Amino acid sequence: MYLSQCIKRAAQVSGNKPATLFGDRSHTWNKFNDRVQCLASGMKSLGISAGERVAILSLNSDRYLELFFSIPWAGAVSVPINIRLAAPEILFTLNDSETEMLVVDDAFAQMLPALEGKMKTVKKVIFAGDGETPSGCINYEELIAKSEPVEDAERGGEDLAGLFYTGGTTGRSKGVMLSHNNLMSNALNVIPFMKFDETSVYLHVAPMFHLADCASTFSLTMAAGTHTFLPKFDPQETLQVMQDNKVSVCLLVPTMVNMLINFPDINKYDISSLKTILYGASPMPEAVLLRAMELFPNCEFKQGYGMTETSPVMTFLDSKFHVTDGPNSGKLKSAGYPAFGVEILIADENDNELPRGEVGEIIARGPNVMHGYWKMPETTQETLRNGWMHTGDMAYMDEDGFVYIVDRNKDMIISGGENVYSSETEQAVYKHTAVQECAVIGVPHKEWGEQVHAVVVFKSGESASEEELKAHCIELIAGYKCPRSWEIREEPLPMSGAGKILKTELRKPHWDGKGKGVN
Amino acid sequence: MYLSQCIKRAAQVSGNKPATLFGDRSHTWNKFNDRVQCLASGMKSLGISAGERVAILSLNSDRYLELFFSIPWAGAVSVPINIRLAAPEILFTLNDSETEMLVVDDAFAQMLPALEGKMKTVKKVIFAGDGETPSGCINYEELIAKSEPVEDAERGGEDLAGLFYTGGTTGRSKGVMLSHNNLMSNALNVIPFMKFDETSVYLHVAPMFHLADCASTFSLTMAAGTHTFLPKFDPQETLQVMQDNKVSVCLLVPTMVNMLINFPDINKYDISSLKTILYGASPMPEAVLLRAMELFPNCEFKQGYGMTETSPVMTFLDSKFHVTDGPNSGKLKSAGYPAFGVEILIADENDNELPRGEVGEIIARGPNVMHGYWKMPETTQETLRNGWMHTGDMAYMDEDGFVYIVDRNKDMIISGGENVYSSETEQAVYKHTAVQECAVIGVPHKEWGEQVHAVVVFKSGESASEEELKAHCIELIAGYKCPRSWEIREEPLPMSGAGKILKTELRKPHWDGKGKGVN
Repeated sequence: MYLSQCIKRAAQVSGNKPATLFGDRSHTWNKFNDRVQCLASGMKSLGISAGERVAILSLNSDRYLELFFSIPWAGAVSVPINIRLAAPEILFTLNDSETEMLVVDDAFAQMLPALEGKMKTVKKVIFAGDGETPSGCINYEELIAKSEPVEDAERGGEDLAGLFYTGGTTGRSKGVMLSHNNLMSNALNVIPFMKFDETSVYLHVAPMFHLADCASTFSLTMAAGTHTFLPKFDPQETLQVMQDNKVSVCLLVPTMVNMLINFPDINKYDISSLKTILYGASPMPEAVLLRAMELFPNCEFKQGYGMTETSPVMTFLDSKFHVTDGPNSGKLKSAGYPAFGVEILIADENDNELPRGEVGEIIARGPNVMHGYWKMPETTQETLRNGWMHTGDMAYMDEDGFVYIVDRNKDMIISGGENVYSSETEQAVYKHTAVQECAVIGVPHKEWGEQVHAVVVFKSGESASEEELKAHCIELIAGYKCPRSWEIREEPLPMSGAGKILKTELRKPHWDGKGKGVN
Repeated sequence: MYLSQCIKRAAQVSGNKPATLFGDRSHTWNKFNDRVQCLASGMKSLGISAGERVAILSLNSDRYLELFFSIPWAGAVSVPINIRLAAPEILFTLNDSETEMLVVDDAFAQMLPALEGKMKTVKKVIFAGDGETPSGCINYEELIAKSEPVEDAERGGEDLAGLFYTGGTTGRSKGVMLSHNNLMSNALNVIPFMKFDETSVYLHVAPMFHLADCASTFSLTMAAGTHTFLPKFDPQETLQVMQDNKVSVCLLVPTMVNMLINFPDINKYDISSLKTILYGASPMPEAVLLRAMELFPNCEFKQGYGMTETSPVMTFLDSKFHVTDGPNSGKLKSAGYPAFGVEILIADENDNELPRGEVGEIIARGPNVMHGYWKMPETTQETLRNGWMHTGDMAYMDEDGFVYIVDRNKDMIISGGENVYSSETEQAVYKHTAVQECAVIGVPHKEWGEQVHAVVVFKSGESASEEELKAHCIELIAGYKCPRSWEIREEPLPMSGAGKILKTELRKPHWDGKGKGVN
């Protein structure tokens, strides 16, 4: 299987129907395919060859989707960059992935001067915005206009399709290597669950670089549906575009659902076309979900659970289990049961399946499991040992195969749909000269699910104000990774016998009775 | 992917729910998995090792399903045998596939004496019937009872899962090699289309050896649904079991649909549970379909088009296109659009896509396409040339991607859901000493779709009666492959410049105005 077959099928089935709706711009699938071919051809003329990396640093748009298909059409590998990263993190991603070509939109063109001269491998920058083309950049539309369609490179199967960077427990972000088969098998897992077909109209409002949204990107295309886009989430604009484009389905992270249901003017919009809301990427507070189910009575709610390393879906909670009474009730606290093509076990430390109801690590196997971490063979081997993906998430399974997550990967904080690896934040805090010890944990937050919280012990005789610590961190890491609250301790942090900081002890007072990490 | 993961998931999701309902017998998925493991263990104790072939010669039953999963669990390869074959054809299949173990039920135990001594590689025969175990056979239930559960052999991916014999244009039947990935990717293609889930109850009434039924065997299991069985089709018994077991979905070949709608007592049965009828395996006369849609107003009709070599599904016609007015009408004469994971082209002889509306050969590509024909590298290379499966079926595609079959593989006659390769029948006829020339074609038949028809020219001064010719053929090939009508000609048959018999000329008077092969 290969990604290009998605757009070939879309052109067969929906050739004269809209592929993309974005503001005033719309392309049919025939036109979309033509543009993809020209763009791929243009990239090749600029020197991109099979297997090379092309990075995308852009808000959501129809061009983002074109890039997701042009890059593999040219035989190259996509590197979608987290739009919330700080300049040093972006540089790390570009250099670590040895990206040859970078595509930026209006929102990120301003960042180019900060990257200039520090990008080790980027040879060409494409400007995919609508404003003025920055000097030294190649204009996206001009590149398409002057290029001729080209045959698909027919990379596929186990060939690398994308490098998706994810926060790292080892203090640096890791490039998750996903092949064509990885992404295509996820697409086949998603279609039956989402019931995508050629009549579906999907809104990309969650960021397109993230696998949570990507889960639908390839599956909806395979199903020959229509894509519509918002550059980024805003409750009012989301409702407006849902009404204007008769959106039938979208992915929302729980924070977005929360903001929508609290938006005062929600009833002024006709969103009767909306039939399905997929949510995921972080635990959904049950109260928010129940309120949303009340507010959108004609809308089916579905939950997906997964991670970048599994392309991403592992389990699904279907809409029929989003009920509070009847035979299908009682499953709302779960993340659903295994997707059709994915094997899931709740396992002990030797990868043996545990009896139902016992808590163990979620491990997964299937064609959706990543090839590994880019240039990190040891971490790869550890994570994929015995042929299983070790998620680090702890859960139990009930008698009907439903998975109940009781503790997310302890090193990961999910705040407003963004994954924050505590070790990455800790490393930044530790770089402040006054800091002796630091532990970063997630504490409950009504809106974001979790909030990044730092516990700090200063070196003897030294100290720093909260403002100083904040200013220090923001220089090094993305804003969403910086601690929002600080706790200064006099005594040393609690340690395990092996000398590891006991984060469970630190989390306890914040979470008691609040069911940390439970969906 | 590997077949065993289907039953592992089924046990996770529906462990305590029925896997199989067959007469008075029922097993939960937990019990089913336990039996599969014991049977696999028993087979191994009898000497079956990874990659060896185990043939099944049986009417439909719950044990057939257990075999479909025990054989791969033991690491072996299934060889499901066409139940309508004559003894010499069965022997050919067993010997060609180098089968090590044969499983027979009550219906075929009587055939054992005719096979005795002629099976070159079969070392053990398992009796999976309910009657008395024939001497020399091992009893299926006893084997399970005395065996301990065993770990899955974990064969999978591109490993061979089954050899499915299909009639051959070269005069002999060919073993289609399907891998675990082939069958699993078909299962993933079928699920979204059939909307299988853990509540589905599927009736196996079409023969289980045939890929038309197999299409649902693995996908329904993956979805953790319930299987129920009839040994073979009978209108009254079909309606009875639909009522008794609250069947929700089944595959019927057009001949069965026709017999059901003409069954006088149809209204005496409560088949309100039946929500979906999948039909396929041969062209459905439109009048029959429309009548069936009238008779089952609460039932969705779906059509699948495929062949053994594609595991089997290539295109689907969804229920929403089974309408005679509205925007979705006008597609009923088609075979639907490409399944999600399958690439379909209507191609010229160089495998280039033809413009919409132009007739060309259907070629297919995807993980569902067979590895090839068993021990026939040249035929394989010819059929799979350029990476595409060449179906031999001629069709055009409309602007919405719907495929309209205008001429089935000219060498294949589909009579009552059975594929008859004309060359195989011709070879049998040619063996009669009086025959000079022979061409076998399909002619229209109200009930079976097509009827096998022979056009014969005798050698100068020789002749034979129809009865003699019939008696001659039935000795050599299965009854359904024997000509039902005969046409004796004095003059030589029409020939092409290259010396090939012009079958189009022979077909013409029979089909004029009847749209041969059109769905």
